[in-house]
Amino acid sequence: MTIGVVIHEVGLRDGLQMEQGIVPFERKLAWARGLVDAGLDIVQIGSFVHPTKVPQMADTDRLFAEIRAGELREGAILSGLVLNEKGMERGVAVGVEMFCMGVSASETHSRKNTGMSVAEASGRVIAMAQQALASGRRVQVSVQSAFGCGYDGAVPTERVLDLVRRYVDSGITSVSLADTAGHADPDGVERMFAKVLAIGSGIDCACHFHNTYGLGLANVCAALRAGVTHVETSVAGLGGCPFTKIAGGNVCTEDFVHMLQRTGRREDVRLDRLIAVANDVAGFFGRDMPGMVYRSGPIPWTAGVVS
Amino acid sequence: MTIGVVIHEVGLRDGLQMEQGIVPFERKLAWARGLVDAGLDIVQIGSFVHPTKVPQMADTDRLFAEIRAGELREGAILSGLVLNEKGMERGVAVGVEMFCMGVSASETHSRKNTGMSVAEASGRVIAMAQQALASGRRVQVSVQSAFGCGYDGAVPTERVLDLVRRYVDSGITSVSLADTAGHADPDGVERMFAKVLAIGSGIDCACHFHNTYGLGLANVCAALRAGVTHVETSVAGLGGCPFTKIAGGNVCTEDFVHMLQRTGRREDVRLDRLIAVANDVAGFFGRDMPGMVYRSGPIPWTAGVVS
Repeated sequence: MTIGVVIHEVGLRDGLQMEQGIVPFERKLAWARGLVDAGLDIVQIGSFVHPTKVPQMADTDRLFAEIRAGELREGAILSGLVLNEKGMERGVAVGVEMFCMGVSASETHSRKNTGMSVAEASGRVIAMAQQALASGRRVQVSVQSAFGCGYDGAVPTERVLDLVRRYVDSGITSVSLADTAGHADPDGVERMFAKVLAIGSGIDCACHFHNTYGLGLANVCAALRAGVTHVETSVAGLGGCPFTKIAGGNVCTEDFVHMLQRTGRREDVRLDRLIAVANDVAGFFGRDMPGMVYRSGPIPWTAGVVS
Repeated sequence: MTIGVVIHEVGLRDGLQMEQGIVPFERKLAWARGLVDAGLDIVQIGSFVHPTKVPQMADTDRLFAEIRAGELREGAILSGLVLNEKGMERGVAVGVEMFCMGVSASETHSRKNTGMSVAEASGRVIAMAQQALASGRRVQVSVQSAFGCGYDGAVPTERVLDLVRRYVDSGITSVSLADTAGHADPDGVERMFAKVLAIGSGIDCACHFHNTYGLGLANVCAALRAGVTHVETSVAGLGGCPFTKIAGGNVCTEDFVHMLQRTGRREDVRLDRLIAVANDVAGFFGRDMPGMVYRSGPIPWTAGVVS
């Protein structure tokens, strides 16, 4: 595994958009600041989607503005998800430094999510990404449903690789593979990322897993072994669907950071601050969240196995 | 990873002994039969401990007798945990085929658990193991607290290796390392098992992890990479302590079997039957159990990533 893993917190976006309860602005702001202050490398603040479509994201512009107006930890990057040109305009207006966008590798998922085929969606997203890159922004483009689709089942690896090749040929080298449905397994993850990284030498890979079947952290370990450098996680493991019996959210940030500490890979992130945010998230929603470490507390001894 | 992983179900012992609610005999019998019928290789029926010490295990002898009196899936092995000579006598009387026993690598844990030092406990356990082996039984001896101790913190690797060497020198080649406190991390697991397996060529290694910090399945994957062939898991993820905030139980059997199916390693175990038992376990205790797959259901498509 690589030393110096980059942690990209996506709970305020991918997590909260699954929740029915709207988080009041001040509380969300406190969570965002807590996550930045804890030392996470990139914090996704929200999605520039139409407010009537995802009411939980309606305050994204205001959140960005407010956080940027205050004191921001040096080196912290704030990211935002954009779905279309209008969202990009909003993001540019509030000074988003890192734009995230994506295309599904599954035709059914793409049409249901965007009304476009994979080919149409990728053309449009690549054009947006190039525009953002040209204006000096960081850009990360993801392949959604890269390890299987909730509608179509298995997704051929070649379709994922085709999309990544299109991104790379268009000058986009920061690529995330998202396991939208949670179908990934460690062996498949290692094979897939090895193939993606073999496409070109300048590619930075991110991974994004859901813990629907309990494999979240095992998949992250497999991705790191394959050479992935960026890991997307969610505070308290937010991101499950609380209205169904499926409890799996995103891979939990505290649990991942705890593992990075135990294995000596990252010791700079303040786990206590992450746990404080996770506890407040659980308190707000009034239920146990999927994360483990915020409930158990970290191991109260120096990290690592004595040898 | 190895094809042909052996699954050792320990929920009826390590799981139930953490629960306050006593499971009625008939229900426990149904669970045991369901687990055996699902195709799990080894099912631990209970512990031959004094009934006043662990009332949940008071029916272990009767369970063994009842299951053996009925029809038993060919090839299925029933195991039982023994703590002392008296327990061994009881196990022999009901025809236990596989005896499990263990010694803690932590002095404090050993003394609190058995009233003996590690040296005393290991002498006694090795003598019991040799007696069981001499009578033609299968025997597995574990090192408890092999990856850290809830009392003492880190446990030196050399102490674990010393115990394993003593076992192997005494003719015991089936060795389990148990992460009693849940402190293990994937890197440490891989290093530890590589060292254990390097002790001798005839060693069969088992692993036993708790998911206290979310690393259970990631640790199992690391153990399999190192050459471990036996994995101890618990139906529904039983084994957490429901009276504390710590929700982590053993690695969950269904979740592990689901992963084995997805990665093409084992396709003979009946996941639907395991899920049925897990649902009944959750129904009995009236709460969500830690397992994920029994709640989400398996992925409704053919396993594996299409390539």
